[in-house]
Amino acid sequence: MAVAVFAVTLFGAGLLRFGAQPAAAPIAGPAAAVPARHAVAAAPAAQPDGCAKPNRTIQLYAVELAKDPVTKQVRLGYGLAAKSASYPGPTIEMTEGECLAITLHNNVSSATLQSLRGNSAHPLAVSLHAHGVKYTASSDGTMENKSYVAPGGQRTYFWYAKPRDPTTGAQGTAGYWWYHDHMVGGPHGTAGMSSGLFGALIVRRQGDVKPARTYVTAFGDRQSINLRRGAATDTCAATKPVAGPTCLIAKPGERIEFVVIGIGNDVHTFHLHGHSWADTRTGTLDGTDKSLVNSVAVIDNKTLGPGDSFGLQIIAGDSVGPGNWMLHCHMQFHSDQGMSTMLHVLNADGTVAPHSADHAP
Amino acid sequence: MAVAVFAVTLFGAGLLRFGAQPAAAPIAGPAAAVPARHAVAAAPAAQPDGCAKPNRTIQLYAVELAKDPVTKQVRLGYGLAAKSASYPGPTIEMTEGECLAITLHNNVSSATLQSLRGNSAHPLAVSLHAHGVKYTASSDGTMENKSYVAPGGQRTYFWYAKPRDPTTGAQGTAGYWWYHDHMVGGPHGTAGMSSGLFGALIVRRQGDVKPARTYVTAFGDRQSINLRRGAATDTCAATKPVAGPTCLIAKPGERIEFVVIGIGNDVHTFHLHGHSWADTRTGTLDGTDKSLVNSVAVIDNKTLGPGDSFGLQIIAGDSVGPGNWMLHCHMQFHSDQGMSTMLHVLNADGTVAPHSADHAP
Amino acid sequence: MAVAVFAVTLFGAGLLRFGAQPAAAPIAGPAAAVPARHAVAAAPAAQPDGCAKPNRTIQLYAVELAKDPVTKQVRLGYGLAAKSASYPGPTIEMTEGECLAITLHNNVSSATLQSLRGNSAHPLAVSLHAHGVKYTASSDGTMENKSYVAPGGQRTYFWYAKPRDPTTGAQGTAGYWWYHDHMVGGPHGTAGMSSGLFGALIVRRQGDVKPARTYVTAFGDRQSINLRRGAATDTCAATKPVAGPTCLIAKPGERIEFVVIGIGNDVHTFHLHGHSWADTRTGTLDGTDKSLVNSVAVIDNKTLGPGDSFGLQIIAGDSVGPGNWMLHCHMQFHSDQGMSTMLHVLNADGTVAPHSADHAP
Repeated sequence: MAVAVFAVTLFGAGLLRFGAQPAAAPIAGPAAAVPARHAVAAAPAAQPDGCAKPNRTIQLYAVELAKDPVTKQVRLGYGLAAKSASYPGPTIEMTEGECLAITLHNNVSSATLQSLRGNSAHPLAVSLHAHGVKYTASSDGTMENKSYVAPGGQRTYFWYAKPRDPTTGAQGTAGYWWYHDHMVGGPHGTAGMSSGLFGALIVRRQGDVKPARTYVTAFGDRQSINLRRGAATDTCAATKPVAGPTCLIAKPGERIEFVVIGIGNDVHTFHLHGHSWADTRTGTLDGTDKSLVNSVAVIDNKTLGPGDSFGLQIIAGDSVGPGNWMLHCHMQFHSDQGMSTMLHVLNADGTVAPHSADHAP
Repeated sequence: MAVAVFAVTLFGAGLLRFGAQPAAAPIAGPAAAVPARHAVAAAPAAQPDGCAKPNRTIQLYAVELAKDPVTKQVRLGYGLAAKSASYPGPTIEMTEGECLAITLHNNVSSATLQSLRGNSAHPLAVSLHAHGVKYTASSDGTMENKSYVAPGGQRTYFWYAKPRDPTTGAQGTAGYWWYHDHMVGGPHGTAGMSSGLFGALIVRRQGDVKPARTYVTAFGDRQSINLRRGAATDTCAATKPVAGPTCLIAKPGERIEFVVIGIGNDVHTFHLHGHSWADTRTGTLDGTDKSLVNSVAVIDNKTLGPGDSFGLQIIAGDSVGPGNWMLHCHMQFHSDQGMSTMLHVLNADGTVAPHSADHAP
Repeated sequence: MAVAVFAVTLFGAGLLRFGAQPAAAPIAGPAAAVPARHAVAAAPAAQPDGCAKPNRTIQLYAVELAKDPVTKQVRLGYGLAAKSASYPGPTIEMTEGECLAITLHNNVSSATLQSLRGNSAHPLAVSLHAHGVKYTASSDGTMENKSYVAPGGQRTYFWYAKPRDPTTGAQGTAGYWWYHDHMVGGPHGTAGMSSGLFGALIVRRQGDVKPARTYVTAFGDRQSINLRRGAATDTCAATKPVAGPTCLIAKPGERIEFVVIGIGNDVHTFHLHGHSWADTRTGTLDGTDKSLVNSVAVIDNKTLGPGDSFGLQIIAGDSVGPGNWMLHCHMQFHSDQGMSTMLHVLNADGTVAPHSADHAP
């Protein structure tokens, strides 16, 4: 909070918009192994235009988690508390018009960051880079803009969910986005993302219908969904299943939403059995304009490259009923290697129909 | 027919929607080499909600064809009769509101299916999985839902082309979809699709304009169009050419349509010389709303990943006249290796302009 | 000019539309090493329907440039004059309704073309193939249609920026397109494009808002932007920077546009920090129709395959202010290898904020 207030006071709304960068000031935290050319540490984050006071402040922790049980790779995660860190990180929701201040605490050790970087001149740090929302350069989360956090340090980022401007027609920021590290391993955060430093960011428009459940499916390297594959993508119990990133369940008739994210080095496709959606901002189309209704494609498979994100809302089991509906990448060798899970539309008694682990490799 | 009627009688519309799965019952056919955990064979297919009685019933045969003349790979095909099986299979057209019952007959031998599977525990079977339309779990065509057909057996699948709900605005199922096997080789049907078990599925909206000709171009592995490449993609005779998957012809001014399908393990692009289309459900935009007209992109190249399908309607030769218009993947090494054919817009006398086989590798 | 007039006189508008190809006639230029089956050289280009007289005529030169400083690869470029040839070539702008005659002069030597081809039977020539606009077969720029230019020769191509037909609703040609060679190296022009023979083609609709600046970013092989990568993608001076393909600058509040092109053998994504755009024809959405506004997705990352092109207009620094905003492919190993540059939104005094070359590999 201290940092957020500090930033609000010194670098209020609009001040930086077309002005100069504020003088760089040291951030809290131990003196990390920052090379000479990065010796001046990142400036406190400033607020984007229109974001005079944050409507909300959250704490976010970057934490080292247990290694991947199969590959033994380092796993990092973001959490609203250090002990709840996970991959994907918490889904952050905003509504257009809102300004969110996020104080990122870097709990990842220098030793771990060192093990992940390729170039010894690269700073040891984590950061927070958001897609879609508005932020000034000092909330960019990049090495270029010196907006990162050394081990043990913290930094407050400001995200503005700018609404559509009804006068000029300038776009709003409502959408299905994501946030991720842009520092671990190299200047593009490649190792940070592949280790787990990513999560979904949803910006809703005022009046948007809210779904009953939201699931995040990030398609990444090693043919993984949320960095897991095969049996590990689906850990639902047959009775009293607990919803989560590896247990996708819904009651028939519930409105559920998926945020689909592409990370890594490959192209994937999101395919869901038995369900389809409009290829629009939300997967739905509530209008009655004949020309628009006729023009919009309805799809059940969508290709995404790294960096892409999209969302879709469906009515679980609509016209198809309960069942174990496969959700997989349609790149065949990907699904064959385990890039596949299931949406379990529950039976009337709340149970999951018997299912196999045959989507495992 | 017997199976279809049986299903209609016992598992009428809506019955299964939110209810339990019907008890599994053996299907017709010889006792195939189904491993123990799959010993209980698939249940008869049930009908999706709103699909009380099929409007139409068709028979579909999965058949082994002559091996690929170049690669000597196994080739399978679907056909409305066993002797007319082909790859792609027959294009199936529906109109929103219609319910189609398809009885799939598996004429592929156990020996052939065995030669294609990687894992000896995987059932020897073919299936029918559709994109876009509605079906209950028992028409899903997956191992998971035990909706497959052993050699010599048959099974009836029900597809419902659900219309848009004018009250709720829920999406209809009109679109350019495809159907394919989901069982041959493994639980994702990878070997079934790469052998030829796929075809186009078109769901039209009431009132949609119908084209004069429809062509299917499935982009697949080994840089193939409909599993062929180079000279084999274009077998048109110079005079009296016969239209088909390997002879794309049109009279000037005819409305023709392409269904473009992505299969396999790679991304491709569909590019057509001299013609472009709106990036909408049908490739056309019949409205006059200025904002919509101004917003929709017109394209002549579209990227697709496996599982994607889209369609487009064009007026052949519009503003450009007759000629040999290349149709190719714009991934350069793909087109250079023969992922290229031509749309021949005919001369006034019905002849094809002289053309080379230079699109061959 | 002589050739253009000749073509207009002999093969006027519409004449070829549904008629026969004109008899082939030799083009100017030395007798190149054209193999027997291509001995009859290309016919003069004819005009597409509706394009009775060109509104404008330009000269375009295909030229050999200095080899790539890093890879030592051959570099070719198009230029409005031979001495101004570059890669990308000049951005060509048209407005719907316009007919453009382009006389292409091939200044590339036979020896160079020979060094680039794989098959000794392939003609030594360059050509001009356009996306999106209308042209008859003789302006197609392909070997198939014999519409290429031997070394030392010239040829006039006709492009028609067909407007939307308000009566039939047939699509117009407004869009962000590109043009490229289709002959160097093989029948798909693979070596021509990878050497630099490409440029942007923008067709505007009557009444479209014009941006203050247009930048072309072609994503290609070897993880390059406009065939450059790393430090070579961004050569902006800190003070008085000169805008160009390797120096992307904008004053805050300026409307700028990007034309994004996919070339080569891989899929890429266009991602820009701090800015987003509507996924429409222009990246903007000026309407007020609630259903349309709610349906259109706003994005900041877009996947493109080879052959794809799209454009987007943004207000530089809108809500985010000046700064060094990264523009990169989000395919991680691509950005890590230098497929990354920056949009420098200038400070109030016109300077570029200090920035590193850390996007270099």
